[in-house]
Amino acid sequence: MSERTARRQVLRVTVPSDGQRGGAAPRADLLAAEEPLGIRVDGTALTMTMRTPGDDIELVAGFLASEAVVRSPDDIRDIRICSGISCGHGEHDRPGNIADVSLAPGVTVTPAARRNFMTTSACGVCGKASIDDIRMLPHADLAVDDTRFPAAVLAALPDRLRGAQRVFSRTGGLHAAGLFTRCGQLIVVREDVGRHNAVDKIVGWALLNGRLPLAGCALLVSGRASFELVQKAVLAGIPLLAAVSAPSSLAADLAEEAGLTLVGFLRGPSMNVYTRPHRAQAAELE
Amino acid sequence: MSERTARRQVLRVTVPSDGQRGGAAPRADLLAAEEPLGIRVDGTALTMTMRTPGDDIELVAGFLASEAVVRSPDDIRDIRICSGISCGHGEHDRPGNIADVSLAPGVTVTPAARRNFMTTSACGVCGKASIDDIRMLPHADLAVDDTRFPAAVLAALPDRLRGAQRVFSRTGGLHAAGLFTRCGQLIVVREDVGRHNAVDKIVGWALLNGRLPLAGCALLVSGRASFELVQKAVLAGIPLLAAVSAPSSLAADLAEEAGLTLVGFLRGPSMNVYTRPHRAQAAELE
Repeated sequence: MSERTARRQVLRVTVPSDGQRGGAAPRADLLAAEEPLGIRVDGTALTMTMRTPGDDIELVAGFLASEAVVRSPDDIRDIRICSGISCGHGEHDRPGNIADVSLAPGVTVTPAARRNFMTTSACGVCGKASIDDIRMLPHADLAVDDTRFPAAVLAALPDRLRGAQRVFSRTGGLHAAGLFTRCGQLIVVREDVGRHNAVDKIVGWALLNGRLPLAGCALLVSGRASFELVQKAVLAGIPLLAAVSAPSSLAADLAEEAGLTLVGFLRGPSMNVYTRPHRAQAAELE
Repeated sequence: MSERTARRQVLRVTVPSDGQRGGAAPRADLLAAEEPLGIRVDGTALTMTMRTPGDDIELVAGFLASEAVVRSPDDIRDIRICSGISCGHGEHDRPGNIADVSLAPGVTVTPAARRNFMTTSACGVCGKASIDDIRMLPHADLAVDDTRFPAAVLAALPDRLRGAQRVFSRTGGLHAAGLFTRCGQLIVVREDVGRHNAVDKIVGWALLNGRLPLAGCALLVSGRASFELVQKAVLAGIPLLAAVSAPSSLAADLAEEAGLTLVGFLRGPSMNVYTRPHRAQAAELE
């Protein structure tokens, strides 16, 4: 497997300010590793993603779950992360950048699912159609998940996530996603240069451990909340998605439609609850 | 055209802290709009991207330039942003989410370019192969661009970019990209929920105005610097890419290979110069 970080020489440049002299000095710096991962399913190339190496099997499993290709660990016969050489696909400078997936008998990549990867549905898209697409996919009914998350618990999650980020603290360059219990206990954290990959790694972890759907859990992401992240949370059965930054309009629309509680700007003692606020118990009620 | 922002009702929740009482109150909030945009080229669906509506023609033109499909405004006969209804692709709840592109005679989407969209090259990828792919695409030789950017000028860019962000100030939820002269003058700024879209809008603006390659310019992005963003800068002929946050390893590798100056952690009076530091003049030399 490739490394999660890579050391590079940088020139640290400082301009004069506040009476301090400027200067330039070389130093070593750790960068978050970014490498492409090709995903093949039953011998056919499906997609390619730029990701931070690590937890690759979870990433692939979570991607397949997020795209509604698989629903349980039994749907996957095997996922092998292998080098180009051992797979016979030619020479590569680094091993481990190809995932070969074998699905269980009867499980296939349907045209509807493949559409997302192959982007052949470019005609006729709009926000409502995108939400309709999600509605047609099989997933747990979030509306029946009546888990409540005390606001004070939610407010404490960002510090807990940051504290658990191992690579970020060394590189400053990674997105993170953390799965929490309703009491704020961290279940699992994953990091990646791509926010969507960090969430896929969480979902894949859950799938492979037989924990889907993730009823009663909260998912926190380090950046913004896009439509894509809400889609992943909905398909994983997560009733509350919180983001440190802002959600988009379509993210809020899908969250409302699917019955997911969407929290944004979760910073310090405050947060914005965009949808289904009954799950985020207000401070005066605690 | 759809709106760039969308108003939503939110519940603002605050937990007790520092002796302040907590509470919950409804209020209106502006969100950054996110809508899918389908791109069709000469009648064939090519790709779909989630973007913030606005500057859509630039977005499409820049996407095609970033993927090396087009090189000059003459390569594009026409780009029409149209509703599904007028294009005959069925009904939609919102107009303006389909871009129909007509390329000039002789200009086509080559299999090599299409590979990126259709992600059929998932077999056999690695970081080096990704860089080799870029090398084979036609683009200006950045090594011959000897523009120098005083470090003090670079240090001032983030404040200037933030000051020019119109939607961010209202939503807090958008990435931005800004194109600057070597003296730090802002040429153009674009915003989007997707960082790559913000850069494509800049590149498209340049293409449509006959300003590619963007020799002598600096591009600043509000977040991290990924491989994809370096690729876009290289193909647009931009000699310096600066990011407020960290670059990835593959971003630095491609920048070095292509002769691009990559600046990261551009915050306050300091910055890290990862590659080709001769263009970022150190403070003591000014």
